[in-house]
Amino acid sequence: MKKSVTPEPLKFAKGELILLDQRKIPEKKTYIRIKTACATAKAIKDMVVRGAPAIGVAAAYGMVLGRKNPEKSAQILIAARPTAVNLKWAVQKMLKVKDRSFKTMMREAILLDKENKKMCELISKNGAKLIKKSSRVMTHCNAGPLATGGIGTALGIIFAARKNIETVYVKETRPRLQGARLTAWELKQWRIPCLLISDGMAAHIMKTKRVDAVIVGADRIASNGDSANKIGTYALAISAKYHKVPFYVAAPYSTIDFSAKSGKDIKIEERDEKEMLFLCGKCISAPGVKALNPSFDVTPSSLITAIITERGVIINPCEKNIRKFYS
Amino acid sequence: MKKSVTPEPLKFAKGELILLDQRKIPEKKTYIRIKTACATAKAIKDMVVRGAPAIGVAAAYGMVLGRKNPEKSAQILIAARPTAVNLKWAVQKMLKVKDRSFKTMMREAILLDKENKKMCELISKNGAKLIKKSSRVMTHCNAGPLATGGIGTALGIIFAARKNIETVYVKETRPRLQGARLTAWELKQWRIPCLLISDGMAAHIMKTKRVDAVIVGADRIASNGDSANKIGTYALAISAKYHKVPFYVAAPYSTIDFSAKSGKDIKIEERDEKEMLFLCGKCISAPGVKALNPSFDVTPSSLITAIITERGVIINPCEKNIRKFYS
Repeated sequence: MKKSVTPEPLKFAKGELILLDQRKIPEKKTYIRIKTACATAKAIKDMVVRGAPAIGVAAAYGMVLGRKNPEKSAQILIAARPTAVNLKWAVQKMLKVKDRSFKTMMREAILLDKENKKMCELISKNGAKLIKKSSRVMTHCNAGPLATGGIGTALGIIFAARKNIETVYVKETRPRLQGARLTAWELKQWRIPCLLISDGMAAHIMKTKRVDAVIVGADRIASNGDSANKIGTYALAISAKYHKVPFYVAAPYSTIDFSAKSGKDIKIEERDEKEMLFLCGKCISAPGVKALNPSFDVTPSSLITAIITERGVIINPCEKNIRKFYS
Repeated sequence: MKKSVTPEPLKFAKGELILLDQRKIPEKKTYIRIKTACATAKAIKDMVVRGAPAIGVAAAYGMVLGRKNPEKSAQILIAARPTAVNLKWAVQKMLKVKDRSFKTMMREAILLDKENKKMCELISKNGAKLIKKSSRVMTHCNAGPLATGGIGTALGIIFAARKNIETVYVKETRPRLQGARLTAWELKQWRIPCLLISDGMAAHIMKTKRVDAVIVGADRIASNGDSANKIGTYALAISAKYHKVPFYVAAPYSTIDFSAKSGKDIKIEERDEKEMLFLCGKCISAPGVKALNPSFDVTPSSLITAIITERGVIINPCEKNIRKFYS
């Protein structure tokens, strides 16, 4: 597959984890150098690095940095973002490494990093087959290179199917505007035509323009197919169902949390209300107004046309079909 | 009814139309003094004054200012915001005044202003009857005093029913944030508890919290009940239907455009993409990214539980029921 031209969100060099500060994209490309597991956890919490797969890889390197105190490091890292299950999965994988030398831990983290990139390519290829000629697709939040370290999940599919993409409707994704800031930026670099819309416009666009598919990522998927993703995804899925637009969730196998029976078992992270109330450092509401800030929502599997993984596409992803797929 | 404590969006004094600059609320209370119909149209276009009923009243005073050239003034004013039908209605009412003296024209505009305030009170009273004890309601955009010159339509109902309101979920309403900036500010002054949410959160809140009703305003209603309102309303109505939450549209009789058979006949205003791309003067996306900015969308009457007017409540507002109601 042709390589992406966007900068990598993370790399490890000279004993340091180097993170592209995604909060500054698209204005500036600045990097933060990290030397401890604790600082890695803070960077994940503060969304210097974000996106379930990229968080997983960052946490693996965080475990290398915190190798002298692995149990404690694991605890701090997992607590940084409660919804992203890849984070827990990657940390637990690193915890299983018996030899805690830098070399061995590093080898394991690099392997996980590479597998993650490979996984993105496979998801992209599997998903691209679903995109017909001259498609107009819609996406929410950011599930591209910045969010994954690889080519992306939802956005990776768009990249792999770019010859068939007429335009991408990019939802800006309030409160943190990852769609406007990151997805539109990545699409621009790929020269894939895109149009930015506000989150409230999605249903209107589905009604008044042609939208052939919605493709989003996932931060955690329950064993019945209910999928947690960035806040706003659930509303988008309801609108897609209402307009009979296929709704695809693209995510690696590690996103499926078989310990969660349904969406009810997925803990939704509530973030600081300041993320809602302040924009570019300015308060957007009257003094004293309170806000809610759930960072994710859960889309029931009944609204999902298919889940696209590195192992293939699960059509009608109910519990039975997911189990059948993985057995 | 108890008077509102929020400042009036417009008044006429000493031969000038004085408009509260709503673009500066809640940060600053500044007023713009207007001496011509042309300047009135510009202020309407630039959203110094906004909200279908308030625009109607402003345009009536604009016709007083442009009384020496009424046909031309009418044309400029009507073109300022294509979707708001009250604007056209008010201008045409003023056009019918034969005596174009300042005194007579003023008398007519003041009458329209007063009728508008009365209309708001009646809508509020009619709608308040639908709000049960300890209700949690959700609203979109701003349909309060600032948008109407009276107590409001959707927000007027919330004010009239305030003893029964446990909390108001206020959708911030991108791109111009009227919910965050104006509605939350008005509710704060009324001491009605409210919580700000992003537009993408509405469906999640309906699922995870109790929401007893959604109440919104309208800028134009077709004769079959299809209602145009601020972009994001249609998606909200789809989510309300999915969650079986009653969806109420509050608007004066003059909002019903009997020349429009259905929503398809309502022209949707497309505004400058800069409103989407810039926040607090800063570009929120990568250079060169294009955006769509439809200012309104149309909610089909099949998603509307009732339309609340000054003459009463139209349950299941299909064409038949609207005609029956007004005959």
